[in-house]
Amino acid sequence: FLSCASVHSFHALPPQSTNIDQSIDQSLTCDGWYGVAHGCTRKLGMKICGFLQKNNSLDEKGRIVGAFSQKQQLVSELGEREQRFRRTETDFSNLFARDLLPAKNGEEPTMQFLLEVVDILTNYIRKTFDRSTKVLDFHHPHQLLEGMEGFNLELSDQPESLEQILVDCRDTLKYGVRTGHPRFFNQLSTGLDIIGLAGEWLTSTANTNMFTYEIAPVFVLMEQLTLKKMREIIGWPNGEGDGLFSPGGAISNMYSVMIARYKYFPEVKTKGMSAAPRLVLFTSEHVSKHPQSSHYSITKAGAALGFGKENVILLSTDERGRVIPADLEAKIIDAKQKGYVPLFVNATAGTTVYGAFDPINDIADICEKYNLWLHVDGAWGGGLLMSRRHRHKLSGVERANSVTWNPHKMMGVPLQCSAILVREKGILQGCNSMCAGYLFQPDKQYDVTYDTGDKAIQCGRHVDIFKFWLMWKAKGTVGFEQHIDRCLELSEYLYNKIKNRPGYEMVFQGEPQHTNVCFWYIPPSMRNMPDGEERRERLHKVAPKIKAMMMESGTTMVGYQPQGDKVNFFRMVISNHAATRSDIDFLIDEIERLGHDL
Amino acid sequence: FLSCASVHSFHALPPQSTNIDQSIDQSLTCDGWYGVAHGCTRKLGMKICGFLQKNNSLDEKGRIVGAFSQKQQLVSELGEREQRFRRTETDFSNLFARDLLPAKNGEEPTMQFLLEVVDILTNYIRKTFDRSTKVLDFHHPHQLLEGMEGFNLELSDQPESLEQILVDCRDTLKYGVRTGHPRFFNQLSTGLDIIGLAGEWLTSTANTNMFTYEIAPVFVLMEQLTLKKMREIIGWPNGEGDGLFSPGGAISNMYSVMIARYKYFPEVKTKGMSAAPRLVLFTSEHVSKHPQSSHYSITKAGAALGFGKENVILLSTDERGRVIPADLEAKIIDAKQKGYVPLFVNATAGTTVYGAFDPINDIADICEKYNLWLHVDGAWGGGLLMSRRHRHKLSGVERANSVTWNPHKMMGVPLQCSAILVREKGILQGCNSMCAGYLFQPDKQYDVTYDTGDKAIQCGRHVDIFKFWLMWKAKGTVGFEQHIDRCLELSEYLYNKIKNRPGYEMVFQGEPQHTNVCFWYIPPSMRNMPDGEERRERLHKVAPKIKAMMMESGTTMVGYQPQGDKVNFFRMVISNHAATRSDIDFLIDEIERLGHDL
Repeated sequence: FLSCASVHSFHALPPQSTNIDQSIDQSLTCDGWYGVAHGCTRKLGMKICGFLQKNNSLDEKGRIVGAFSQKQQLVSELGEREQRFRRTETDFSNLFARDLLPAKNGEEPTMQFLLEVVDILTNYIRKTFDRSTKVLDFHHPHQLLEGMEGFNLELSDQPESLEQILVDCRDTLKYGVRTGHPRFFNQLSTGLDIIGLAGEWLTSTANTNMFTYEIAPVFVLMEQLTLKKMREIIGWPNGEGDGLFSPGGAISNMYSVMIARYKYFPEVKTKGMSAAPRLVLFTSEHVSKHPQSSHYSITKAGAALGFGKENVILLSTDERGRVIPADLEAKIIDAKQKGYVPLFVNATAGTTVYGAFDPINDIADICEKYNLWLHVDGAWGGGLLMSRRHRHKLSGVERANSVTWNPHKMMGVPLQCSAILVREKGILQGCNSMCAGYLFQPDKQYDVTYDTGDKAIQCGRHVDIFKFWLMWKAKGTVGFEQHIDRCLELSEYLYNKIKNRPGYEMVFQGEPQHTNVCFWYIPPSMRNMPDGEERRERLHKVAPKIKAMMMESGTTMVGYQPQGDKVNFFRMVISNHAATRSDIDFLIDEIERLGHDL
Repeated sequence: FLSCASVHSFHALPPQSTNIDQSIDQSLTCDGWYGVAHGCTRKLGMKICGFLQKNNSLDEKGRIVGAFSQKQQLVSELGEREQRFRRTETDFSNLFARDLLPAKNGEEPTMQFLLEVVDILTNYIRKTFDRSTKVLDFHHPHQLLEGMEGFNLELSDQPESLEQILVDCRDTLKYGVRTGHPRFFNQLSTGLDIIGLAGEWLTSTANTNMFTYEIAPVFVLMEQLTLKKMREIIGWPNGEGDGLFSPGGAISNMYSVMIARYKYFPEVKTKGMSAAPRLVLFTSEHVSKHPQSSHYSITKAGAALGFGKENVILLSTDERGRVIPADLEAKIIDAKQKGYVPLFVNATAGTTVYGAFDPINDIADICEKYNLWLHVDGAWGGGLLMSRRHRHKLSGVERANSVTWNPHKMMGVPLQCSAILVREKGILQGCNSMCAGYLFQPDKQYDVTYDTGDKAIQCGRHVDIFKFWLMWKAKGTVGFEQHIDRCLELSEYLYNKIKNRPGYEMVFQGEPQHTNVCFWYIPPSMRNMPDGEERRERLHKVAPKIKAMMMESGTTMVGYQPQGDKVNFFRMVISNHAATRSDIDFLIDEIERLGHDL
């Protein structure tokens, strides 16, 4: 009954043992166990795991064969397997990429190799969630470039053995940063979601692209359904509209500017920017000034698309980092008086540093009044739409013409996963299609309106949807909501913990809108210093010093930066589903431990 | 000696068996084998595979313990494991995403779940290389949307069990297209490289981005070294220059246009296109006309970046699809006479349809004469640089200012992996940095010149380098060369097979330059038809009909399209390392089988 197809498929490797009984005996008694544990059984384990599990007919067949024949079969199977695995046991040092599939007899080494890689990965995953593991093992660039004990980054002409490749895989992880560690708070994208990870493993195994339904039927439909669901959550009637997953928030925002331009000045597509008057774009000063911010993307888009950086007008913000609507209106009027044409306003839902939400409804009123395109950059804050408790922070988002929303940030989806969502159907195609009304291979046997290639500025487009779709299936909408609520509760916990704690100053007052908590740590030696240039200069160096020590000790990671006239401060963000209150406590303890003597 | 750390880490799940002997007996005798095979042994297999393999201290410890204690230990370990696995055996239907890590006691179900996913994936991989497996199991969009026996694409509010998630994974692969199948010839990117796949699994497990050295130290250095190696291969002195991996050839080409503009008209970055005269770009008509072509990207870039489609001037080509240099020069002169400013010439190394290589040296002469930026789009043909036999087709590439080269096409690297390479150092940063001379967090403790965020139009940037780096390590430069040579030999075989075969007409004469072989199949009923409109109309429908039947039968896939005034023809391309002459023979047989009665 064990003779399933997967075993039979090994015909290329006939059993070589002439004494099956002996080998099975070796497997099943403790005599000679070392060899078994290290050789046969270990490999047998892999074998069973890899090949026998999915034998669906096991059940029926098992019932109709007698005990004796079962035993015979078992003996013969184990004998076969043992031989096979003994044969490959010491092989990685003599095996090369060329011995793997599609090579003749490549199936066996391929499976061995992949399972060995999976073993490396699962061990990495286990340790990532173990707080006794370091977040990183820091080395300077020159150290890694010089080579670390057997880990040599240089590429060579001749192939290396699979054993070396496995070492390289281990070392690559060893010298990297555990972004899924419960104490990694350095980026907006943190955490290691197991379902999302499984989704990404499958995506890379499927190895296709989103260009046409023909080559990615399931993924294209998943994208369509998921984007519709996201539009429903935004609040567009019946989830109508359009959209795409793009390689990140900056490109999603770039799409929004392109589409806005196409909507108001479609001739630019053909004739270039000279066919339009001087167009201006508006966005928060809080999203554009920061070198470390990923949200100077509107300015980058302005420069790339031919508007020019100086035609991206920065809007003043209040003390919490939110755009002041009156300032927007004043700047629109000012631009018009100069003869420029206001085109596009970006309202940020969740700024990079403060986590501020611009007042979308007020901005939407102004956009309606002056007939401007309203884009909401919810790369970071869009996830809050999943939470009944927090979605009010994006009130008015349904009035936007387009929305950027990165599930790879607040929703914990593995990188990359960013959506550009557009309210008006057809405009994405109109803007980016180079075929001018010519239908995309209308002689295909399926409905080619499902093909997405014509909407994108990309051609081959990576499958970013599957991991997200799978996570949604596995968690449900409620699971995302719980994740969001939990992260925001944690940041509230941090805020409450430090707001009155000696040695801390908040960068802005009041509860954070998002999970961003911005603060200075003041070492004891500075606590009685009078405010002034000297204190500012010293304080500016505190966060970088603590961060450097954190990285050297590898215990935790959190970002810092200056903002406007404010000297370097810590920006704490929480998007990691593994983080708990104890990790927040740890972070604060660590900052105090490292910063105490500064 | 089996008490390795990984076993001890299971403290959260204490053994529950009160009769260890009984359970070990059940495992090791054939009595009750069904239960063992389906339960304990299967799971034991997974367990061993997942946790015991890497026990490096096994060796030493094994030598110093006696046989008796070995046996005791074994019994106790197996007893423990059996209990544990029995407990989780039926669990996937009662397990949910929330039970996985970082959940308390989540390690066990996480490992079980991931190994189950890996089992699905490894089975998929094995079948992909098995020619008795179909390339695809075609369904129309409406069929998949309506739901296929338990496969429902709709997302819901409540979570689904992990059992359903595993079913979804299986079904996603089942209804997809096997792009790694030896008979999948539909795209420029085909094949499933095992090393590359392992690299991508690791990349998604590491789940970081390329923004800074801080969060991707190893990957940032790998990118730097690999880009340098690619520049050396292009022929730039000492491999000097700059570059980035971008999300695909279209974006790489877009970078080249942006950099060219910044080089000659840096004020456009600040002031927009109105600060420049009317700029024109030149590219082959062969790369711009095709709806299915991924290489109308220069035109897309022209439209997006504010040049306007009509300022992308298409160059005439010879009968083989190669740009005619004299036509370029005439069009440059013409543009200048009209008062336009020629800026940029794209020479295509490997067009999408014909696989044509533009004469780079002749084009470079003209670019030098008129002081234009020369970009070589080697998205498809760049891989030939790895082959001593074929790299002459890109002669002159070292004279280019920038080069696009997609390892995810001809070099068989999994999607996405595209490089933009630039000869002048610093210009990528100058073009895309928004920080205007302000150093990127100069207070970091490491050398921040390794940070790449400022060079890119993206912010978060996916790690595309690792799989490529790992493949290069594993194959060596010589391995890529062999792959390229082999694919070109195969296409030569195809060309020789059909060039004089009854029922075939070549779209262009002479041996193909790349692996592209373009041909019409003429069904017997049409072979005596006189040339004319009626024949053209009928012939136009032949390839689509055969392709539709191919997809319905799922046996193979190859692309078709019209080109200029040429009606639909088959475009065969070979980049798949699994393809052999027998697969070429199969394709031809299949075309004849399906097309015979048309």
